[in-house]
Amino acid sequence: MSIAVSSPQPVLIAGKWRPASSASDFAATDPNHNTPLEPRFPVSQWSDVDEALDAAAAAFEEMRKLPPEQIAKFLEDYADRIDANKDALVDAAFAETGLAKSPRLADVELPRTSNQLRAAAAAARSGDWSLPTIDTTTGIRSVYRPLGPVAVFGPNNFPFAFGSVSGGDFAAAIAAGNPVIGKANSSHPETTRRFAELAAQSIEATGLPPATVQLLYRTSHADGERLVADPRIGATGYTGGRAPGLKLKAAADAAGKPIYLELSSVNPVVFTEASLRERGDEIAGEYVTSVLMGTGQFCTNPGLVFVPDGQAGDSFVAAIQTKFADAPAGTLLSPGVLKGLKSGIQTLVDTGAKCLVGGDGEQSDRCAMANTLLTVDGEAFLRDPEGFQSEAFGNAALVVRTKNAEQTCRCLSLLEGNLTGCVYSSKSGDDDLEAREFMFALEPRVGRLLNDKMPTGVAVSAAMNHGGPYPATGHPGFTAVGVPGSLLRFAKLTSFDNVRQDRLPEILRDPPHAAAWRRIDGAWSQAAVG
Amino acid sequence: MSIAVSSPQPVLIAGKWRPASSASDFAATDPNHNTPLEPRFPVSQWSDVDEALDAAAAAFEEMRKLPPEQIAKFLEDYADRIDANKDALVDAAFAETGLAKSPRLADVELPRTSNQLRAAAAAARSGDWSLPTIDTTTGIRSVYRPLGPVAVFGPNNFPFAFGSVSGGDFAAAIAAGNPVIGKANSSHPETTRRFAELAAQSIEATGLPPATVQLLYRTSHADGERLVADPRIGATGYTGGRAPGLKLKAAADAAGKPIYLELSSVNPVVFTEASLRERGDEIAGEYVTSVLMGTGQFCTNPGLVFVPDGQAGDSFVAAIQTKFADAPAGTLLSPGVLKGLKSGIQTLVDTGAKCLVGGDGEQSDRCAMANTLLTVDGEAFLRDPEGFQSEAFGNAALVVRTKNAEQTCRCLSLLEGNLTGCVYSSKSGDDDLEAREFMFALEPRVGRLLNDKMPTGVAVSAAMNHGGPYPATGHPGFTAVGVPGSLLRFAKLTSFDNVRQDRLPEILRDPPHAAAWRRIDGAWSQAAVG
Repeated sequence: MSIAVSSPQPVLIAGKWRPASSASDFAATDPNHNTPLEPRFPVSQWSDVDEALDAAAAAFEEMRKLPPEQIAKFLEDYADRIDANKDALVDAAFAETGLAKSPRLADVELPRTSNQLRAAAAAARSGDWSLPTIDTTTGIRSVYRPLGPVAVFGPNNFPFAFGSVSGGDFAAAIAAGNPVIGKANSSHPETTRRFAELAAQSIEATGLPPATVQLLYRTSHADGERLVADPRIGATGYTGGRAPGLKLKAAADAAGKPIYLELSSVNPVVFTEASLRERGDEIAGEYVTSVLMGTGQFCTNPGLVFVPDGQAGDSFVAAIQTKFADAPAGTLLSPGVLKGLKSGIQTLVDTGAKCLVGGDGEQSDRCAMANTLLTVDGEAFLRDPEGFQSEAFGNAALVVRTKNAEQTCRCLSLLEGNLTGCVYSSKSGDDDLEAREFMFALEPRVGRLLNDKMPTGVAVSAAMNHGGPYPATGHPGFTAVGVPGSLLRFAKLTSFDNVRQDRLPEILRDPPHAAAWRRIDGAWSQAAVG
Repeated sequence: MSIAVSSPQPVLIAGKWRPASSASDFAATDPNHNTPLEPRFPVSQWSDVDEALDAAAAAFEEMRKLPPEQIAKFLEDYADRIDANKDALVDAAFAETGLAKSPRLADVELPRTSNQLRAAAAAARSGDWSLPTIDTTTGIRSVYRPLGPVAVFGPNNFPFAFGSVSGGDFAAAIAAGNPVIGKANSSHPETTRRFAELAAQSIEATGLPPATVQLLYRTSHADGERLVADPRIGATGYTGGRAPGLKLKAAADAAGKPIYLELSSVNPVVFTEASLRERGDEIAGEYVTSVLMGTGQFCTNPGLVFVPDGQAGDSFVAAIQTKFADAPAGTLLSPGVLKGLKSGIQTLVDTGAKCLVGGDGEQSDRCAMANTLLTVDGEAFLRDPEGFQSEAFGNAALVVRTKNAEQTCRCLSLLEGNLTGCVYSSKSGDDDLEAREFMFALEPRVGRLLNDKMPTGVAVSAAMNHGGPYPATGHPGFTAVGVPGSLLRFAKLTSFDNVRQDRLPEILRDPPHAAAWRRIDGAWSQAAVG
């Protein structure tokens, strides 16, 4: 397909790449050089969204009739194509995000992305995810069924693994049986376009409805809000900033449409004094590796740490301060992230935090600023817990120095919802009671509670919860990562009452369904009914 | 406790019955005589709600430390007390709701209520409901954990089984480990008060925190909205009318607080022509029994039926018309329900429905009006599907006469979300394709899909979905009835990552947890890890 140099890229609607109906366009920025990239991408008007919705609704009716096996094959074919096109995808993402080609993009995020699609395929094939439940006494059987077209708004920080047509929300939505309308993140449209091309090839190769995967690059905010509230939409997955996420949430909520949001999180980490006495240097190394990884641009970046007063705490803070000063400042994802980081740091300073290192050092030739470590004491934190929980997304962190364990607990009890919370304690177990108190205070406020381990690195595990109480996400009962759990977001519970055997979804019929675990009269089993 | 005759009843806050902080009070009405009942009940001001929230938050911290066994014992003790106090509860509910003492209140709803509490107790004890998941490869383990204080707004139509301190939401919230703040339905405050008294006795007998169950009777709408959005609240369960429910939803949504709503539903039923030819009289009997049961005041009342044109359809409609005319008009729950029913019927008439029988016949000596059957043709329905889906809660129903199966399917595809949808087809199976088309159209729009069975009668089954797409409920992934599913609404998913064995919730530790099914490395089992 040949496109005039000045035309923005086409959108993918109903299986066709065609010029967008747009009044304006935009380009991504190469954050390593602070320069705009080619090509340009369209800002779609409502008519594009409307057509995509119509096509998605029709595709959904077709998908409802397909065997899960066919959806699994699509996901696997797509995963293979992603692996086969690794170099081109990595090049595109590097140009648009500045994330390291290796190991980050090529060796970590890309394999994670294709494996995530394969895990979703396995879940679709087995049907395990749908919690089939059979009650032979009443003749009622239930299972989670697909919900309808899913809109996916991907974030800027994981161009592959959370990408709107390649990532976790995408994989979960498709595996549960729904078509996806992807809204590319504006910071990496070319990367997203390349994924959509591969997806379209897989759709053709495996015979799925052409509109199973569609792609728009950008819309007005108003049209985004209209999209998530549209009657043709089943649900929305959004990962990104809090303010735009909450606007989408308000629109979806008002229309009674499920929306799953992953918003901001500062991911508190708390250290017992004994743990720092025992292995403060080791922990300092672990911490700085985690907090500066990917220039601090992880959803689970540990940006808020509680360190006890006293010598062990002083040494620990001195150690991480040195490491912050010594580590090279990574490139940030975009000019927008740089701006947000500066403003986040300024908010913390205005609230009363003191800069230990960094705080400035902006570089004009690329999107970057010095690694920044701030500190405040526990009393000040308790006076304005909300202010000191402001997120400074990027290579910055706030250390809260607390007087004693009791003050730490009081601070923890005032935390907002977060994706993760970590407690470090001594291996000897001498501080076990203290550690338990910290865990007790943290647990209701976090989606994942860790011991002696940093929160970055979100395993694609059946036991993973990449979620948490508001405002970390929009609902505390769901995870965005991990198969099979993540699929449940894009499904509706459906009971079949007195329905004839041959009209039931195959997974609910008497004969054993290939590989599916089913809850039959209270007992989980892979056997036939009766 | 002695109360001056003129004082309204006390509220139950933090384990104490004490005078409400109220500026006004109200009384329920005996719908069988259209007369106000004694005693009077307070409209609480915010300070009552505020105190209840503080007490609930403190109780929750205590409950988090309790073994599930103790919560199970409370639920069982309470169930026993309910059974033992059957006569008094039935008398109170009869006076306030006009529902038949027998079989309805004494022999159906009351045993259902106590058995529901026992089923919830069993779920709390086993922990099965919490979907414990163990991934030995990554060292991550997840489980659903209690969410925090739950506000329960009970409906008018099930004073026991959906009561705010006795019903399904209550049982689920407590069994999941949360205290409950009950907001009594204003049509049966005395019934609710009696339940709260028994609950308070059980709390004392089993040593739960006194504020595990609290009771308010009424607040301003503004304070209700403030309650569901309060930071101390974990979630809300609401069953009732659509307009007030949506106001609560907006308030809770804006604060990021989960709210589970069961709103209106017209519960479509569709008949193939062959089914009516085969056994039209039998189905007419089934239908009228279901639609007039409890004077039509069931959430799953089948108020919208699709009947094909032609002789079989004509005979069927004639048969139900006769039965509507012959059946005595039951008493409605309250003057408010009577008013709503009249207005609902008027809306349908204004939209273009024709009255076949009833439509007036209001009786001044009690809350009642004639059984009302309306009809409209398929073409008219297609012109204003929204108008013809207006709910007329009570003993009224709308028959849509469709030209053919294709027109029926078009009507079904325009239905809003409903709790249930039924397809009747012939036993011979000659009309199987047609029935499948109806089911295909209905399935995405209903929570429970039935064959050859009326929707009233909601079994407390693990496979039950008493839920459905908006606006039947606020989220299509959850059920309000059925254990263990209903408990998941009042829980948060929590991962434990690298957490030491003896700091894990007991249900996630290596040794086999008594009776719990756990998903270990993808396989469900009751065995130990490893």
